[in-house]
Amino acid sequence: MTPRGAPEGWRFAARMLLERITSPQDVKALDPSSLPQLCTEIRRAILMSSASVGGHIGSNLGVVELTVALHRVFDSPTDKLIFDVSHQTYTHKMLTGRASNYLDPACYGQLSGFSNPLESEHDLFSMGHTSTSVSLACGMAKARDLAGEMHQVVAVIGDGSLSGGLALEGLDSLAELGSGVIVVVNDNGWSIAENHGGLYRNLAELRESAGGAPCNLFRAFGLDYRFVANGNDEAELERVFTELRNVDHPVVVHVCTTKGAGYEPATADSENWHHVGPFDVESGTYDVFPRNRCEDAETYAGITGSYLLDRMKSDASVVAISAATPYIMGFTPQRRAQAGEQFVDVGIAEEHAATYAAGLARAGAKPVLGLYGVFMQRAYDEFWHDICLNNLPVVILDFGSSVYGTADATHLSFFDLALMGGLPNLRCLAPVCREEYVAMLDWALAQNERPVVIRVPGNGVVSRPDLMTDSDAASVPVSGVIAPLASAPSVAANGAACFDTPRYQVVRPGSEVAVLALGSFFALGERVCDALSSEGLNPTLVNPRFATELDTATLDALAATHRVIVTLEDGVLEGGWGEQVARYLGDRDVRVLCRGVHKDFPDRFDAAELLAQNGTTVEAIVRDVHRVLK
Amino acid sequence: MTPRGAPEGWRFAARMLLERITSPQDVKALDPSSLPQLCTEIRRAILMSSASVGGHIGSNLGVVELTVALHRVFDSPTDKLIFDVSHQTYTHKMLTGRASNYLDPACYGQLSGFSNPLESEHDLFSMGHTSTSVSLACGMAKARDLAGEMHQVVAVIGDGSLSGGLALEGLDSLAELGSGVIVVVNDNGWSIAENHGGLYRNLAELRESAGGAPCNLFRAFGLDYRFVANGNDEAELERVFTELRNVDHPVVVHVCTTKGAGYEPATADSENWHHVGPFDVESGTYDVFPRNRCEDAETYAGITGSYLLDRMKSDASVVAISAATPYIMGFTPQRRAQAGEQFVDVGIAEEHAATYAAGLARAGAKPVLGLYGVFMQRAYDEFWHDICLNNLPVVILDFGSSVYGTADATHLSFFDLALMGGLPNLRCLAPVCREEYVAMLDWALAQNERPVVIRVPGNGVVSRPDLMTDSDAASVPVSGVIAPLASAPSVAANGAACFDTPRYQVVRPGSEVAVLALGSFFALGERVCDALSSEGLNPTLVNPRFATELDTATLDALAATHRVIVTLEDGVLEGGWGEQVARYLGDRDVRVLCRGVHKDFPDRFDAAELLAQNGTTVEAIVRDVHRVLK
Repeated sequence: MTPRGAPEGWRFAARMLLERITSPQDVKALDPSSLPQLCTEIRRAILMSSASVGGHIGSNLGVVELTVALHRVFDSPTDKLIFDVSHQTYTHKMLTGRASNYLDPACYGQLSGFSNPLESEHDLFSMGHTSTSVSLACGMAKARDLAGEMHQVVAVIGDGSLSGGLALEGLDSLAELGSGVIVVVNDNGWSIAENHGGLYRNLAELRESAGGAPCNLFRAFGLDYRFVANGNDEAELERVFTELRNVDHPVVVHVCTTKGAGYEPATADSENWHHVGPFDVESGTYDVFPRNRCEDAETYAGITGSYLLDRMKSDASVVAISAATPYIMGFTPQRRAQAGEQFVDVGIAEEHAATYAAGLARAGAKPVLGLYGVFMQRAYDEFWHDICLNNLPVVILDFGSSVYGTADATHLSFFDLALMGGLPNLRCLAPVCREEYVAMLDWALAQNERPVVIRVPGNGVVSRPDLMTDSDAASVPVSGVIAPLASAPSVAANGAACFDTPRYQVVRPGSEVAVLALGSFFALGERVCDALSSEGLNPTLVNPRFATELDTATLDALAATHRVIVTLEDGVLEGGWGEQVARYLGDRDVRVLCRGVHKDFPDRFDAAELLAQNGTTVEAIVRDVHRVLK
Repeated sequence: MTPRGAPEGWRFAARMLLERITSPQDVKALDPSSLPQLCTEIRRAILMSSASVGGHIGSNLGVVELTVALHRVFDSPTDKLIFDVSHQTYTHKMLTGRASNYLDPACYGQLSGFSNPLESEHDLFSMGHTSTSVSLACGMAKARDLAGEMHQVVAVIGDGSLSGGLALEGLDSLAELGSGVIVVVNDNGWSIAENHGGLYRNLAELRESAGGAPCNLFRAFGLDYRFVANGNDEAELERVFTELRNVDHPVVVHVCTTKGAGYEPATADSENWHHVGPFDVESGTYDVFPRNRCEDAETYAGITGSYLLDRMKSDASVVAISAATPYIMGFTPQRRAQAGEQFVDVGIAEEHAATYAAGLARAGAKPVLGLYGVFMQRAYDEFWHDICLNNLPVVILDFGSSVYGTADATHLSFFDLALMGGLPNLRCLAPVCREEYVAMLDWALAQNERPVVIRVPGNGVVSRPDLMTDSDAASVPVSGVIAPLASAPSVAANGAACFDTPRYQVVRPGSEVAVLALGSFFALGERVCDALSSEGLNPTLVNPRFATELDTATLDALAATHRVIVTLEDGVLEGGWGEQVARYLGDRDVRVLCRGVHKDFPDRFDAAELLAQNGTTVEAIVRDVHRVLK
């Protein structure tokens, strides 16, 4: 495929240097005078491939020279190169035998966007979460020392990762290692959005003083330190790395690079060009900027940002908190400016974000923490100890948690229900539609009783006002019978939806088979019911809404009046919501079929295929229901 | 009760100052000349009460003057005092209306050993995990600023907590707050064991330079800084705090205290006196020093330390890793010295410990990470992303996880199974006895296929060689029948126990009822079976051994031949192991009863009572089995 806006002659000529690079040895063999051309070719390959299939363009353009210098000085895979997050390894991949995947349009996007040991011996870990590289390097260096080996271990960290607690623990611990590790701090001045935190002021001070400022975070951690002012100067980097080739103690090399270097649109707008979908190379425009997408009222980001800004206007105690991903909750730079002191981005520091929210709630404010589901797990202990143990009314918005979310193994975002299920005091609400989401936001912000997670559907916005009306929100179990309900208990006296008590919504009363379809899988449940109905059955359809607590009254009634209960959840089964239902009903005369996905680390999967492999399709579920009904 | 070795006249006279302190106002009202006497009385109260009921004596003796000074300068609870970990709040409790609990032997031990909002409005959070205070202070200060209030927020951190990533994230973020927060760093030179990490070198440099060293960790995080050389000098502390009373920006006060100050045995041996059981005040001796206990061959600490030291001698790649709790895995100072480079204490930094282990394993070493179950949750993301996603053969020893473990709500250690159940690739083994534990250690260290957690029984060591013999390890399901087994699949060709495949051990084949009793609850399962047998039933008893994976062949066979399956686990039910069994058997014609404890935060509970409340007693289970069999 031809990238849109690709300049004339964008297909590379056969005499390219990059085409001849099959391993780091080929990079070493190049005459230094060829390196500027190599870097130009690499940049062009990054641009062309990303323009076609998307990618983390900013940081990759920034580390071209750094990566070339590393591979010229060190001997990967004998020497260990560990790239933090590994989202900035495109050059590394090109130099380790995988250039064709960035040169041949037919191969664009075939590689993982992250490092992957299955792809190459030069990729040491599957990784995609930040701040791990220093600790991994400590471990690899320790193993080297115990084995009496002599190679070097290099961690490349930066692009926002330094503020994660694990990175700081790693730096602190590194000083005790007593042998050689090189930590390259790629200081490009950015996280995903702008950097946050006092340490970045120290980095600025060090930049301004050419590394000479006496107060130095890295030295304060007991580490040796070098400064490279121009991290896009390959020769200078090569000189410094050569000097450190056999260093026998931990040293930090502070390298200043330009995020997006070599592509003006990306340097001019680092936040939007951190990660892009397909774009037009020539004009530097692309269809869906995060900023545009996240103000779109047809996205949950857009709905959330607009809702929260509105709430902030009438309530000065509402604080939206992000850990370096403001756009997932709809906070563009403009909206952040509008929110002023009521929006806080703490940088990549999910643990701090959670405990900070606990402090806010304890002092009477209304914190709303917006996290990607996959990153909630980075703050598990803070959820348990700071938020849930103290039963503080923090509102957590859990975005993107779905098999339809990120499909990289490193970023699987369907483990969240299993993680939350065991947390006492936590109420997790799973809305089906935008109307229910807003009703849950209203309720969560109005109450002071407990922490609330709202699991924002990760498979798109649907509108289902029918689920919100009294007459349709329509049934409550009374003494074992699923009876129609005049005044739905889900609606409080003031007309607002009420989630004070775990109460399932029986959307269609029926018999024999009950389908409990949680949140983003409600539509799947409807389709299962439709299919069963078309075969003459009269299934009950339930919108459970509560994902970590059971509505035991409704379950009792359903068990007494049905032969099969099906639970559908958009997440892992092991430790998930359906298993709680199965356990609760374990002593009843009713069969329970739990459907979702089994725990695993599928990589770059197709969601529909994954569900089919797990028996979570309309056809498979209908077949299983019939099997059990026999 | 009279503390052993209490000096003559240990009961305090009626004219004591401390008896007259009912609130911080009374502390403020004292003439400065009375304060040395007050501090002496407080120290004596700490000593006497701890000698009777145990406690965190070292750090509490160290912060007497600091706490008095804080309460004289600040106005709690209007001003917010947040003590990290809150294990060093005895003085704070005495000065906020709770002195009698440390003065009247009849009241010793009635208070929580940690801060607790249910006890006093001066205790802001239930807390017991380290490194949270700075983030909590950020949140409370932010809420103050949004509400336009003017009080001060003070976090007191130290005693090892500073190395936790959350504390470092908090310090980094604090600089951005732009308003007043005081962080008191209590630098006593110690964690639970000795301090580890480069930052402690910087603290030493600051101590040596009276705070004047230009390289300063706190300033590198963008924070203002003061130094107090003698943190046991109340007057000096009061002077500094008064100066900072209305500070309008974040400032760190680096205070040097002596751990155990005022009690020679505790200053002379900080590690052993970090937390003590009852002891003899006069002689400074107590029955069970951690050092003695953890070399006791009748404890799992002793068994582990001895086993690992032995393995290290024959295999230089074995590395034992601790996060500041070396004694739980049997590593006394002597054993640490023997292990040399093969033992690593990373300090309070569980995340780093886990990722460091991943790095070691990737490089071919054999890391064995020993953690308290309750603190495993501090490294959830590192387990998921660094260890499990990369499927690295890290061996994790999960200590103390049991309802019979720590009974403080802050330290509940029975959430671990629920946490691990959803982790792909992870094999969690739950041994019943010391023989099985050692067999599992042998297997885990010999294999390179996957990460392994061994859930060390938290309810004491039992010896059950009978479970290890071929003839008793005795049954395997064949085509739906529980048949006796000649060659147990749990024993490999070389005679070593083998855990390559999830395979339950059918200890007593029977019919109708099968009791699957996991690890530390195996003995409970035996008692349930005995009770059922005495009533004429012939229950099957199973030792499942695999806590996060199912032996589906055995479950299929059991379901086909039994009417009731009982699962017993020493942990929370929600998200736990039993629910996986219930889900798997949900579509079968068999009832499943899952017993354990429901998710909750019970505080200072009696384990037997807690189990009774959850229906997890022999009597209740037998009753439930009969109910279902009807």
